[in-house]
Amino acid sequence: MSLDGYIAGVNDSIDRPIGDNGELLHRWVYELKSWRKAHGLEGGASGPSSDVIAESMDDVGAVVLGRRMFDFGETYWGDEPPFHAPVFVVTNRPRASETKQGGTSYTFVTDGLEAALDAAAETAGEQRLHVAGGADIIRQCIASDRLDELQIHLVPVLLGGGKRLFETSHPPRHLKVDRLIETPDVTHIRYDLRSNDK
Amino acid sequence: MSLDGYIAGVNDSIDRPIGDNGELLHRWVYELKSWRKAHGLEGGASGPSSDVIAESMDDVGAVVLGRRMFDFGETYWGDEPPFHAPVFVVTNRPRASETKQGGTSYTFVTDGLEAALDAAAETAGEQRLHVAGGADIIRQCIASDRLDELQIHLVPVLLGGGKRLFETSHPPRHLKVDRLIETPDVTHIRYDLRSNDK
Repeated sequence: MSLDGYIAGVNDSIDRPIGDNGELLHRWVYELKSWRKAHGLEGGASGPSSDVIAESMDDVGAVVLGRRMFDFGETYWGDEPPFHAPVFVVTNRPRASETKQGGTSYTFVTDGLEAALDAAAETAGEQRLHVAGGADIIRQCIASDRLDELQIHLVPVLLGGGKRLFETSHPPRHLKVDRLIETPDVTHIRYDLRSNDK
Repeated sequence: MSLDGYIAGVNDSIDRPIGDNGELLHRWVYELKSWRKAHGLEGGASGPSSDVIAESMDDVGAVVLGRRMFDFGETYWGDEPPFHAPVFVVTNRPRASETKQGGTSYTFVTDGLEAALDAAAETAGEQRLHVAGGADIIRQCIASDRLDELQIHLVPVLLGGGKRLFETSHPPRHLKVDRLIETPDVTHIRYDLRSNDK
């Protein structure tokens, strides 16, 4: 997320999911060793940010995605998607499940976010459930009080327009900063959502 | 600023400048020793946040305020305002200068932000020029490229609505994090605006 609250630029589309100038928000991740490994790419930089991304994918037993993020990513992710775990897509359009290479499967849940979270949690079992996005699903998950933690990767950019992560009107909620990791390119702020005093 | 980008709640007014639930954003500052001292109050907590606020007021030779922030604050600030330096108010309404107690004076500049910054910079001389707010003035100062640094006090709150610090459409701009100070109540992120690669 940029300092001014955007997670994608204007004019985001299936051809350009991160929108105009979206690379200013996301380029830090593309060169990380852990991100590249998950995407089947060689090389990349080690360090705190690579460790944070590795951690976010470690011990994940299921992933939840919004329909829009899935539509935007499906072609790019290809035959061996970077999730390496069962993925549950919240959508209104029924579609048969698919098994991809590398441990990823896609299951399309048409009866709402709560049902998707329930199915993903059951699949994850003792492992962690990762809600990868997009913005709408993350907001809904916060509102539904089903998240244990929220991690924001705050980049020192004023994007000046685009798709905001937070934009819905709702009652105030106090969070707790659980961990903060600073790098020149991005600040990783992890919030504990279990111990808040709403 | 809250994690979701607000610096005041909804329904902000002269009677309630911080808006509904605005205390969730600002209460960390009220108990700081340095903030209380500037406001003529005894006591308060020492520590990193108090040091950050003390530093923001140290060696300040002039202050610039927007008209709205001035109108909202004037009565509350009273006869000995917390600025302890000459204050230049950007406004459309001519008004005679006033000298208050404790080193504060108010000068009303009616020919625009650049003129106010010029007058304040001349008054400040070798000392620092502090742009205290509100949001509109801060945004205009960033856009006009007249700021050396920007400090965000990021509070772990999802306010859910109110007045945003950043909301104007503009070209993207890359900033540089200069310093980050973490406390349980607030994270102070200072951006260096001089060395950006726009």
